[in-house]
Amino acid sequence: MELGYYDGQFRDINEKVIPIDERGHQFGDGVYEFIRVYKGTPLALSQHLDRLERSAKALLIELPFSRTDLEKIIEEGIQKSTLEEADIYMQVTRGISPRNHLFPDTKAELSMTIRHPRQMPDEAYEKGISTLLLEDERWANCYIKSLNLLPNILAKQAAASKGCKEAILVKDGYITEGSSSNVFVIKDQILYTTPATKQILCGITRTNVLACAKEEGIQVREQHMTIDFIKQADEAFVTSTSIGILPIARIDEQHLSSTRPIIDKLTNAYQIFREQQVHIQS
Amino acid sequence: MELGYYDGQFRDINEKVIPIDERGHQFGDGVYEFIRVYKGTPLALSQHLDRLERSAKALLIELPFSRTDLEKIIEEGIQKSTLEEADIYMQVTRGISPRNHLFPDTKAELSMTIRHPRQMPDEAYEKGISTLLLEDERWANCYIKSLNLLPNILAKQAAASKGCKEAILVKDGYITEGSSSNVFVIKDQILYTTPATKQILCGITRTNVLACAKEEGIQVREQHMTIDFIKQADEAFVTSTSIGILPIARIDEQHLSSTRPIIDKLTNAYQIFREQQVHIQS
Repeated sequence: MELGYYDGQFRDINEKVIPIDERGHQFGDGVYEFIRVYKGTPLALSQHLDRLERSAKALLIELPFSRTDLEKIIEEGIQKSTLEEADIYMQVTRGISPRNHLFPDTKAELSMTIRHPRQMPDEAYEKGISTLLLEDERWANCYIKSLNLLPNILAKQAAASKGCKEAILVKDGYITEGSSSNVFVIKDQILYTTPATKQILCGITRTNVLACAKEEGIQVREQHMTIDFIKQADEAFVTSTSIGILPIARIDEQHLSSTRPIIDKLTNAYQIFREQQVHIQS
Repeated sequence: MELGYYDGQFRDINEKVIPIDERGHQFGDGVYEFIRVYKGTPLALSQHLDRLERSAKALLIELPFSRTDLEKIIEEGIQKSTLEEADIYMQVTRGISPRNHLFPDTKAELSMTIRHPRQMPDEAYEKGISTLLLEDERWANCYIKSLNLLPNILAKQAAASKGCKEAILVKDGYITEGSSSNVFVIKDQILYTTPATKQILCGITRTNVLACAKEEGIQVREQHMTIDFIKQADEAFVTSTSIGILPIARIDEQHLSSTRPIIDKLTNAYQIFREQQVHIQS
């Protein structure tokens, strides 16, 4: 059963629970996490909650629950939903107060949904996806996982309108990240990805894939990549919590090789890592 | 009586009317307008609705009401509220749909609040306000009046934490605008303001103050202004729908003159313009 959570309670996912004067609704004044549940266990939960804390801190939002309480709420939600495989979306806003730019003296609000996972078709993993290069028009602090996602959704939609599954964003001539993913390139056996500066969101899957690569003895370089560099990749892929490792077949009009030895190796390693994590956490 | 509006009805302003999966709440995926009502008449309504249409078009949001219907809803709201002096806040989001970056196939949703106006104290207009220069960290399309206002609220709050009423944003060494206002400078009898590029929101009050200035025979130049230029101003002020024309007394540590002949002239002219507009519209 899919579930919603707001104002301290689990509820029908479609229930109207938010007043107009919610700072999420009016300013995008909040932070979020997206967590994937496998076999009843939220993968990399502590990494997600660490990041939620960092994002909230960057926006000076005081989380309305302790770490332990948050873990309990998530655990309770998974149990109530009875979903073994699920997507958990959670966001914390600065709360409810008559609209005013200045921070209100009110408590932050946690929203959550728990639903069946939305998955890419197997074909996307086999064939790889088409991607579109687009100008990165976002703000200066994309390292914060905030609700100000308008540039991201516009980029994703622009990509979709050209038959692409992801937009790869380019700032000052260099790749930053995808509209909802991190970008990796393989060239001459070396794995490249954009460094985790303020311009990108440091993905949990990005972190864990980099760890897997090191375990596998693959050389890793976090460095800025030009458009030419990514178009001349031997292999390339995007990562996120919802998609895992997803190969790129095409960047604009440039087709990449359909042989992907390092992606195959990493996909296997990441699959094993994921199963181990779920086993350890459960 | 203060009122809310959502899902086609006027309601208690605090009623819980929005589900978690609202794209305003989750992505800031929407646009807004803030309209001031004087003597029961919304000032510059057609300019505000023109801009709402432009903002929605830029984000590919189809407004859920015709222009005539929107005017009727606003008129009905003012009547129901019985407020002669009021702030109308209205926002249109892309609507309600399970969270997904891609545009959903659903109708846009209009939210509105009508409440007593929030006003600056008279003292602020007499003495002028203190302002703080801050780096403009916003996205590339600030000409769209969107709900992605996190950088704006962070700047406003940072200014407040230093005892300032407004943050003046600086991009690449040039003034763009305030966190919720446009910025004007007077130097050698000439009125300067930042040109209405994609980097700023072209304020309705900005437009109308520029028209008043021309009527008054004041020379106007829309041109980019450096930090040094604004600090050496003879006079400076910010404008917005809620504050009108508000003099600046201090920029960082730089105090400006407390004699403000051109601001005084413009304030009178704008006051007369406002009264005429309200008279014509009512």
